[in-house]
Amino acid sequence: MAGGEPHKRRGGRAGHVAPKRTAFGKIRRKIPPYQLLDSSALDAIEIQADWILERIGMEFHGDDVALELFRAAGADVDGVSVKFEPGLVRSLCATAPRQFDLVARDPVNTITLCGDYLVLMPGYGSPFVTDLDRGRRYATLDDFHKFIKLTQMSPYLQHSGGTVVEPTDVPVNKRHLDMVYAHLTLSNKPFMGAVTGAVHAQDSIDMARLVFGDMMDNCAVMQGNINVNSPLVFDGVMTGALRAYAKAGQCVCISPAIFGGAMGPVTQVDVIAQTHAEAMVGIALTQLVRRGCPVVYGSFHSTMSLKSGALTFGSAEASLPTMALAQMARRLGVPVRSGGGQITSSNCADGQAMAESNSAMWSTIMSGTHQVWHAAGWLEGGLVMSYEKFAMDLDQCGAMLRMVQGIETSEFAKDAYRETGPGQNFLATTHTLEHFRDANFQPDIAECGPYETWAEAGEQTLDQRANTRWKSVLGRYQRPEIDASVDTALLDFMAQRRAREEDMWY
Amino acid sequence: MAGGEPHKRRGGRAGHVAPKRTAFGKIRRKIPPYQLLDSSALDAIEIQADWILERIGMEFHGDDVALELFRAAGADVDGVSVKFEPGLVRSLCATAPRQFDLVARDPVNTITLCGDYLVLMPGYGSPFVTDLDRGRRYATLDDFHKFIKLTQMSPYLQHSGGTVVEPTDVPVNKRHLDMVYAHLTLSNKPFMGAVTGAVHAQDSIDMARLVFGDMMDNCAVMQGNINVNSPLVFDGVMTGALRAYAKAGQCVCISPAIFGGAMGPVTQVDVIAQTHAEAMVGIALTQLVRRGCPVVYGSFHSTMSLKSGALTFGSAEASLPTMALAQMARRLGVPVRSGGGQITSSNCADGQAMAESNSAMWSTIMSGTHQVWHAAGWLEGGLVMSYEKFAMDLDQCGAMLRMVQGIETSEFAKDAYRETGPGQNFLATTHTLEHFRDANFQPDIAECGPYETWAEAGEQTLDQRANTRWKSVLGRYQRPEIDASVDTALLDFMAQRRAREEDMWY
Repeated sequence: MAGGEPHKRRGGRAGHVAPKRTAFGKIRRKIPPYQLLDSSALDAIEIQADWILERIGMEFHGDDVALELFRAAGADVDGVSVKFEPGLVRSLCATAPRQFDLVARDPVNTITLCGDYLVLMPGYGSPFVTDLDRGRRYATLDDFHKFIKLTQMSPYLQHSGGTVVEPTDVPVNKRHLDMVYAHLTLSNKPFMGAVTGAVHAQDSIDMARLVFGDMMDNCAVMQGNINVNSPLVFDGVMTGALRAYAKAGQCVCISPAIFGGAMGPVTQVDVIAQTHAEAMVGIALTQLVRRGCPVVYGSFHSTMSLKSGALTFGSAEASLPTMALAQMARRLGVPVRSGGGQITSSNCADGQAMAESNSAMWSTIMSGTHQVWHAAGWLEGGLVMSYEKFAMDLDQCGAMLRMVQGIETSEFAKDAYRETGPGQNFLATTHTLEHFRDANFQPDIAECGPYETWAEAGEQTLDQRANTRWKSVLGRYQRPEIDASVDTALLDFMAQRRAREEDMWY
Repeated sequence: MAGGEPHKRRGGRAGHVAPKRTAFGKIRRKIPPYQLLDSSALDAIEIQADWILERIGMEFHGDDVALELFRAAGADVDGVSVKFEPGLVRSLCATAPRQFDLVARDPVNTITLCGDYLVLMPGYGSPFVTDLDRGRRYATLDDFHKFIKLTQMSPYLQHSGGTVVEPTDVPVNKRHLDMVYAHLTLSNKPFMGAVTGAVHAQDSIDMARLVFGDMMDNCAVMQGNINVNSPLVFDGVMTGALRAYAKAGQCVCISPAIFGGAMGPVTQVDVIAQTHAEAMVGIALTQLVRRGCPVVYGSFHSTMSLKSGALTFGSAEASLPTMALAQMARRLGVPVRSGGGQITSSNCADGQAMAESNSAMWSTIMSGTHQVWHAAGWLEGGLVMSYEKFAMDLDQCGAMLRMVQGIETSEFAKDAYRETGPGQNFLATTHTLEHFRDANFQPDIAECGPYETWAEAGEQTLDQRANTRWKSVLGRYQRPEIDASVDTALLDFMAQRRAREEDMWY
């Protein structure tokens, strides 16, 4: 993969398979992305991003290698500050591939990132979990395992995620091993590795190599999520991980994180411009480490209550940049992670949770994004993964995947009209019977029956039905097969790494 | 208003006022409509609509006047069947105005229907109401009054609606008088009159004339909703009302009502084509009664569970035609009512209710529609208006009205960056302080505070907070002023009409 763009045009439709319960195959959208902004507005935002990079600049803390790479590429490096003449960063991004695959352990689950492909993923990063039986509590490795299993079982999530929840009962300096092991053995979908420094990233890559072998020299099998310390700062812990993944040719997602009014201006157009500047700089660094390294243009932004300063999600002011940022990424010519999918600030899985989540998800899906992070489970601004919300969100994910299939317009049901006519019911027509099974998406827990039936059955709200649902799905989980010698090699590697240093708990 | 298009180009921006608590003034969207289908697909749908009208035809039951009007216009009338050569119906629609106002009793609430104007309205037609205190029950006139008052109080609903709930404690043959009186006196926003036959429609018009006087000769002050008995049937009760409103130059909305698989084919493209055919025929009839009569192209369609036959709302398969039908209406050149706004099949105001409602609302708003019916209150597939759901939906309406304002792209916050820099917080910048008050929409009942605070306050779900909210709003309601002689004239008219016939209860 040295030089050039070896990730491009691989895979294609070869990975396509008929839908089955744990794999839809690749999802391709057939409805156009929404064009929120016109090209003159997009031009203006690009110019403002260049202005930020030239006049304000970025800072790289604790990463002399990164500073040296930028200096060599022509940037103006002064201490930790890096400034760029207009257009320089964009030109450095030009070698990032427009299209690539994330190869899964089961090839049927390999995903493609580009164009009209769409990938949904579970939530990321919550220190807490909650369910209706046990309430809110710190997340453990057992919770981590459960969410990996629930994700593996869902046909609506095409990616196993990363730090789905924080396994707080495992030492902080060793939990990355358990998380990567869980992704590699409890799931056979693509996944994310650790980003808590270069060493943990390298451990993640080494473990993946025990499973995927030398094919990793030629393709990406994993992804690292590099958060920007917005505004305009990259931390050495993160860029160390970035450089490890890039060096290994694995996918790097650059995620600016801007809450308007705090980590950037309160106005949407500025959130967009700053996100664009920050994402481009991270992408440029990947290319300086290894030309052709596959990247994802990330965006994570939202709003604050300007009464209380609390973070808000699913707001109108957050939906707008979500839609515009996918336009910016398409201009840059790289795949984009838009959103926050189903994100909310609600403290429980109620109507607020679903209204906010659905708004965030609609803006994300309409944007034409390639990866939707946090598509299931998120509550409380990401502090909590909810088992019930996870099941509730999956119904919405399924509906969204149906919606992006669009409308078949190649034929009309003329015979159905010939069979019926004005005032008659279409239920028994040949056309209806032919389309009956597949016409409409069937949610798992939404109910549409009469009030009386629902009342007699105990007036269960959606979260209560979701409680039944996730347990039933978990009960059916089966660990995907893995070669015993590979499993042993992984366990040996982990034992070795664990012995390397003392446990750390904070 | 005889001949020509006198409703066009009136009003313009003259009605604009600064936002205040009970009136935002006119809402104009600044974000583009979503273009789901390309022009070749839209062409194909128009051709299929023509095919339906030529080969299958429409039926008009119990309305010889309508049949005669169509015969005189060149249609092929055979008994109750009316068929049209391709293009005929579309050409009959050509005199319908592209733009008109619905003049409100308080001019500040006058709305414009066309182009980028947007009007949100409460639910319509529920026989039941529910609230958390008293539970589910038949709706009464008192409930009707309460929802008119809640609508009047909301800055997010620009129209008082019609049969917001069925006042089941008033005789069926007289309740239209009470409903129109309530709209005319408890509200000063535009409203809908009765459509339960020509006589009730004329009563509604006569009552409006007692308030608006002769200005009704030159403008529309009310709207009648003409449901189609889909598939492809107009009932004489409805078309009688249609002709009364059209003759009086008042606005007529034609509302096909198609649940795919029952009142039309199960496939979306056919739901679109049939809606288009039915809507055009209704609009054509208004123009045959009175050229230039203001119309709204309606669409009301949804899906069924193909397991149980129960109606489903907010589904992916329903969102797609919602977006396409606004495109069809724009082609025809008339304002469009898209949706169902916040509609759901859920039996309570839970997460399902808000997820489905939000999906339906997003597709409606993205479509570029002009009128959003059922934007607040709807539960149980429209059987129930919920006081709590009403308050919950209003938060979403407010957010949507913010979203359609789009992104201001004319300037960037360069000074904010000059004041701060990498790694610094933007909260105290001049830019943030300047934009602080108006930067973000503030919902009334959504909460974003920490879990601990929420838990200590009793773990209230959104519907519980909504219960407090609607009572507090209702407590602040004040009846808008009305001339005492006008009020007396309305009451006298109603007494006279009530004395005309015996009470009927079904």
